[in-house]
Amino acid sequence: MTRHHRRAAILSIGDELTLGQTLNTNSKWLAERLLEAGVVTIEHVTIPDDVDVQAATLSRLAGAADLVIVSGGLGPTADDLTRAALARACNEALVEDHIALAQVEAWFGSRGREMPDINRVQALRPARATSIQNLHGTAPGLFATLPGGADAFCLPGPPGEMFPMFEAAVVPRLRPVKGLVVKTATVHCFGIGESEIAMRLGTLMDRGANPLVGTTASGGVVSCRVRFEGEATEAEAIAAVKRVTERVRESVSPFAFSESDPSVAKAVVQRLAANGQSLGVVESCTGGRLGAMITDVAGSSKVFVGGLLTYSNEMKTRLAGVDPALLAEGGPGAVSPAVARAMAVGGLERLGCDHCLAITGIAGPGGAVPAVGDRAPKPVGLVYIAHAERGEECRVRAFKMFGDRHSIREWSAKAALMMIWLSPAAPATMLREIIG
Amino acid sequence: MTRHHRRAAILSIGDELTLGQTLNTNSKWLAERLLEAGVVTIEHVTIPDDVDVQAATLSRLAGAADLVIVSGGLGPTADDLTRAALARACNEALVEDHIALAQVEAWFGSRGREMPDINRVQALRPARATSIQNLHGTAPGLFATLPGGADAFCLPGPPGEMFPMFEAAVVPRLRPVKGLVVKTATVHCFGIGESEIAMRLGTLMDRGANPLVGTTASGGVVSCRVRFEGEATEAEAIAAVKRVTERVRESVSPFAFSESDPSVAKAVVQRLAANGQSLGVVESCTGGRLGAMITDVAGSSKVFVGGLLTYSNEMKTRLAGVDPALLAEGGPGAVSPAVARAMAVGGLERLGCDHCLAITGIAGPGGAVPAVGDRAPKPVGLVYIAHAERGEECRVRAFKMFGDRHSIREWSAKAALMMIWLSPAAPATMLREIIG
Repeated sequence: MTRHHRRAAILSIGDELTLGQTLNTNSKWLAERLLEAGVVTIEHVTIPDDVDVQAATLSRLAGAADLVIVSGGLGPTADDLTRAALARACNEALVEDHIALAQVEAWFGSRGREMPDINRVQALRPARATSIQNLHGTAPGLFATLPGGADAFCLPGPPGEMFPMFEAAVVPRLRPVKGLVVKTATVHCFGIGESEIAMRLGTLMDRGANPLVGTTASGGVVSCRVRFEGEATEAEAIAAVKRVTERVRESVSPFAFSESDPSVAKAVVQRLAANGQSLGVVESCTGGRLGAMITDVAGSSKVFVGGLLTYSNEMKTRLAGVDPALLAEGGPGAVSPAVARAMAVGGLERLGCDHCLAITGIAGPGGAVPAVGDRAPKPVGLVYIAHAERGEECRVRAFKMFGDRHSIREWSAKAALMMIWLSPAAPATMLREIIG
Repeated sequence: MTRHHRRAAILSIGDELTLGQTLNTNSKWLAERLLEAGVVTIEHVTIPDDVDVQAATLSRLAGAADLVIVSGGLGPTADDLTRAALARACNEALVEDHIALAQVEAWFGSRGREMPDINRVQALRPARATSIQNLHGTAPGLFATLPGGADAFCLPGPPGEMFPMFEAAVVPRLRPVKGLVVKTATVHCFGIGESEIAMRLGTLMDRGANPLVGTTASGGVVSCRVRFEGEATEAEAIAAVKRVTERVRESVSPFAFSESDPSVAKAVVQRLAANGQSLGVVESCTGGRLGAMITDVAGSSKVFVGGLLTYSNEMKTRLAGVDPALLAEGGPGAVSPAVARAMAVGGLERLGCDHCLAITGIAGPGGAVPAVGDRAPKPVGLVYIAHAERGEECRVRAFKMFGDRHSIREWSAKAALMMIWLSPAAPATMLREIIG
């Protein structure tokens, strides 16, 4: 009789984590994925590279939960002790797994290198455990049922290896409690704050509601999460989530851009591709961040032609054809609606595209311009964004972004994309002017 | 006789954390600040809003550590249970603190509002505990010495309230072990794998060593961390860390680029700024990622002039002046050493800078070119990077990056910067050809 995975614990390993040198993002990701699969996480623990502590913690968590997900400590070096700790928690010796060894050797072979001796330890596993192939790195994962009956999965620490191994090897082996159904949906928005969204959602966010609606904000994108959890049929759960998601969508209109992916760029690329339209960029303070965001979308070459990084004033004139008088003493200056417009219009012409986005602003920490005479000051976070579209009036918007250099650049790039997103359906003026 | 704070534990409270809806950044921040103060964190734990679990965990951690820092659960609502849990761990009742109550009332008063009744519970504390004023929110903190002698500080969860309360009320009451000194240093490298670094470091990584050396990899950057922890004078500890750091630096030469910041871009910008040289970029598959990485460095405008995003073939010719014959049927094609060179040389000319980096490659998932006749295939991850420098021969390197689209683009941008970093000291051929 196999035990269900009602409650999970997440154990992260590494001195760099306990000492605060590295931010732990694995635990959040794992808890989120487990919940989507119907398994509730009851504890996250982070401990150092210490085999005694690792073995004792593993045993303690196996007593409290039905499933323990461990990440980290599977590398080839002397401070990678998860294999030994799992063996100790199982009261077993480590043995070499021949298939795992062949896989580690093949990983190096595919890169034209021989496996260094040091990596041989990565093929060790406790006698009862199963090795899990790692397609994205050298460290195999491990699976074992511990004394007492809880299941443990040990996964590599780097997210690029851990995420795909979790999807491929852990998800199919999860056994959520029968009858308990968890269904979720998400509506991603940009250009509206979390508290305004909370006011618009009203009683939909009540703590006792099922489906329950919660919001989280990351990088300026507010994601409204809908979660049903209870005893119901699949169909009932899906219908309940659908009904509430519909209400959320109406409440946050027109700022919702996706229900599958928090990338504004992806939503814009998909729409332009469907319309057969092309896109170019002219960037000053974002210095390539907007182009990078667009080309991070696989298949963006169908839409994105290229761009001009006009970081210096000279490049604004030389590459985008901005009138030097606008940039000269006494003119409006590089951070102005006139220069944003000239960049976008110049880019549309020189790049030969259907849409061109231009961004000029002050990302900080330096660069703020004090008031001079009757001229308004230009504070850090002041950003002008222009959207030129073939055959349309060029739209220019002023924003005041709050936050550090990184956030100001990130939000500027997303606000630019959102100007395209909103342009057919709603006036760009609906975008909140103040972000942060 | 007062007990020293040799070891600390960090306890975070909240369903939104255990379920993975919110990323926990408090624990990392606290561990980092504690280490700076000479207190080593041995465990981080995150648990739900459940008073029984909170009280039991607090007692367990008080047995393992000399100091427990709790964050979260001090709000005014029904799911804020840290006050009750602390009382239970102290075996005491909650009493109302009149000064704390006056402070909560004053906080509302300063905003022109009356205190809602619901906030009155925030002035409760276990009889033995001390309330800590919160200047940035309504929730007072709590301090108590638990049965057994460990000290506990309970702080509010929002970072904007927690950070200043920690600085004002916790730091002055820390009692690190007299004579116990913790000193750390880090050497950041790029272009060499973690296992090769481990082989080069050899016995320096022995687990018993003090200073202890460990490595962590993130985004292709391998960071070698040196940590001394022991009874010594400040000067002895600094000398020990310096001596070992020197050996680490020699071992990983020439791939070390910084001992303060894991950004290759920052190291390159600082060196070029010191030399009074300027930098431009011509990007194809990275689509702006390299420019964004450079301009993420505050003050990069001293060095970075701008760039050309030549995502389509047409833009390679139009913007960077690449000979169309190179891109036409029968030519070497967009992903080739000849085109990388033409992009870099064209960029150097058109942007008028001292250094120009050009990147062309296949980031995937699509775009791979099969072998045709006697022409080699072009797989996903094949990337050519060229570094043109005024008055020097243009250097071109082929790379085979492994990983997903995001990693290939990230590593390509860093490898390009590393080509500049290595160019005066070592031949660019020392950069590992295969990354991932």
